[in-house]
Amino acid sequence: MLALAGYPLGLEFTFLDPAPDACAAALGEHLCADYADPSALAKLCARCALATFEFENVPLAVAERVAARVPLRPGIAALRTGQDRLAEKTLFTRLGIPVPPFAVIDRRADIDAALGQVGTPALLKTRRLGYDGKGQASIDSRDQIDAAWQRVGAQPCLLESRVAFSRELSCLAVRDIGGAIRFYPVVENHHYEGILRCSRPRSDDPLQRQAQDYTARVLQALDYVGVMAFEFFVAGDGLLANEIAPRVHNSGHWSIEGAHVSQFENHLRAITGLPLGDTAPRDACAMLNCIGRPPPLAAVLAVPGTHLHLYGKTPKPGRKIGHLTITADNGRELDGRLSDLRETVPELFVGI
Amino acid sequence: MLALAGYPLGLEFTFLDPAPDACAAALGEHLCADYADPSALAKLCARCALATFEFENVPLAVAERVAARVPLRPGIAALRTGQDRLAEKTLFTRLGIPVPPFAVIDRRADIDAALGQVGTPALLKTRRLGYDGKGQASIDSRDQIDAAWQRVGAQPCLLESRVAFSRELSCLAVRDIGGAIRFYPVVENHHYEGILRCSRPRSDDPLQRQAQDYTARVLQALDYVGVMAFEFFVAGDGLLANEIAPRVHNSGHWSIEGAHVSQFENHLRAITGLPLGDTAPRDACAMLNCIGRPPPLAAVLAVPGTHLHLYGKTPKPGRKIGHLTITADNGRELDGRLSDLRETVPELFVGI
Repeated sequence: MLALAGYPLGLEFTFLDPAPDACAAALGEHLCADYADPSALAKLCARCALATFEFENVPLAVAERVAARVPLRPGIAALRTGQDRLAEKTLFTRLGIPVPPFAVIDRRADIDAALGQVGTPALLKTRRLGYDGKGQASIDSRDQIDAAWQRVGAQPCLLESRVAFSRELSCLAVRDIGGAIRFYPVVENHHYEGILRCSRPRSDDPLQRQAQDYTARVLQALDYVGVMAFEFFVAGDGLLANEIAPRVHNSGHWSIEGAHVSQFENHLRAITGLPLGDTAPRDACAMLNCIGRPPPLAAVLAVPGTHLHLYGKTPKPGRKIGHLTITADNGRELDGRLSDLRETVPELFVGI
Repeated sequence: MLALAGYPLGLEFTFLDPAPDACAAALGEHLCADYADPSALAKLCARCALATFEFENVPLAVAERVAARVPLRPGIAALRTGQDRLAEKTLFTRLGIPVPPFAVIDRRADIDAALGQVGTPALLKTRRLGYDGKGQASIDSRDQIDAAWQRVGAQPCLLESRVAFSRELSCLAVRDIGGAIRFYPVVENHHYEGILRCSRPRSDDPLQRQAQDYTARVLQALDYVGVMAFEFFVAGDGLLANEIAPRVHNSGHWSIEGAHVSQFENHLRAITGLPLGDTAPRDACAMLNCIGRPPPLAAVLAVPGTHLHLYGKTPKPGRKIGHLTITADNGRELDGRLSDLRETVPELFVGI
């Protein structure tokens, strides 16, 4: 989606992705190699005037090697922070951004004491490489500790209080090289089985200002350039920080049709030094992920306002292989269209 | 732009284009060969489940060879008509669509009599291969006949009355396999030196209904599938047919941002048998072509509502190498933005 947004800006793309079926491969030169492959990295840096990433688990050492050759935006500090839950929490705390109670777990034996401090229910989360609910285990009582420790692979973790939240929000923002920031409206996210299913931007949300304030602190602290997503829990009447994604984010995909300038184009404008585009919403809209397999195309496209985005990925259970954005003139019309879609294609609404 | 619209629909693309620097080459397999090259055609037909064109001067014999192997949409009848001004005029006349007075010119000697019939000022236009004002010559008086005949290459032509028109409009429409038609709002076009410079969709134009009526007649007569553009002159209070383009069209480029579903996506939906998308405008907008060289990117993108589309073409004088679409909440805001842009980048407004 970055490449699709970038060609009209006159950009060209080379992709480094170890997956032979990388979905971007059709849109530019695909260097199919391990991230650390020296010759692939040399080629990448020779081809490109500038590098970015849309996956925060690019090995840090690789990113550092790229950054030594060409500008890497966002930079190493953002990537390092986004890769490690402890680094995130430490940064949030230093910046005065509230987080759920948590404790650092280096070994199995740390969990007992940590549970006393954090309380139950709790979540054990790996410090690194977690996504879509992977690398997480619930602990509701002490007899579940062993199973949870095994489930997360017996590795360094955080134990977090499982907050009783009323909503999950994310704040997408873009910061340019000069430090100017623009914010998209906060997005309400609905997960099921650990996977994002639905995102809906909420103009005039009472928590917009607080979300922007916290997001700006992080962007400035990291001297961030590009699009970042900051995920929050709403607990009581305030926000608790969950995590950041130092990249364009699934909860911002609605912006392709729903905002004047999408997160993808704004990311590219930011990292190439072009003026940022308007982040304001154009319409009411909602995004639904297509999980595991494509929806029936004719049926979904027959619902007015529905826009399809398939990623060219091989379908498999639990995999995000595309999304739909439904636009409408107002919230009521949008609700009607979502109802129609729910009736036609109930699989899109499983668990939400 | 078709390919950029098509990937999100799950489509893949192979392009046949004799130009080594074909701008679509980055977005799929590029068969760089003469249109009539048998092995390139065989490859194209082997790769594709379906074929279309975005250039109406694909040789008819080539299109026929493709159509014998895979569905070609729109079909041969549309291509044949769109390639030949006489075939167009004959069809329009048969369908009761008014055209400017014209006469058929097979040789130099036909012009004198034709001028008596058509009157001056007149335009001598080649029957085939004219675009961007090429293949045309003005005749204001009889002493210009020889020069005009030489200028158009001494080949079969039409002599047309140069109509005193108040506006140039185009009607973009899309027809699906089942015969359903959707219309975009008519577009007001401004040419300079024979090249389209600016297109502005006009919602609620009093001629919308007449334009739709004429366009529907042609679509039905040709059993057309896909997007077609029909160009008109406004003379008095009615429309005179100029020509059709059996393809997505420059005067519909605004629809990427300005309509709910763009001409590109709707063309692909139509030819692949998917339901047509909403052709209604989302906002006020205008499109400006970038002729000869790219505009100063930072300056144009700093004007709110401006969207850039570069085509990856090598700049050269008179060549369309990209376009800008400017969107706004209403016509007044749009006029303000266009004024700002005119002040910043006057070259975009030369002659208009």
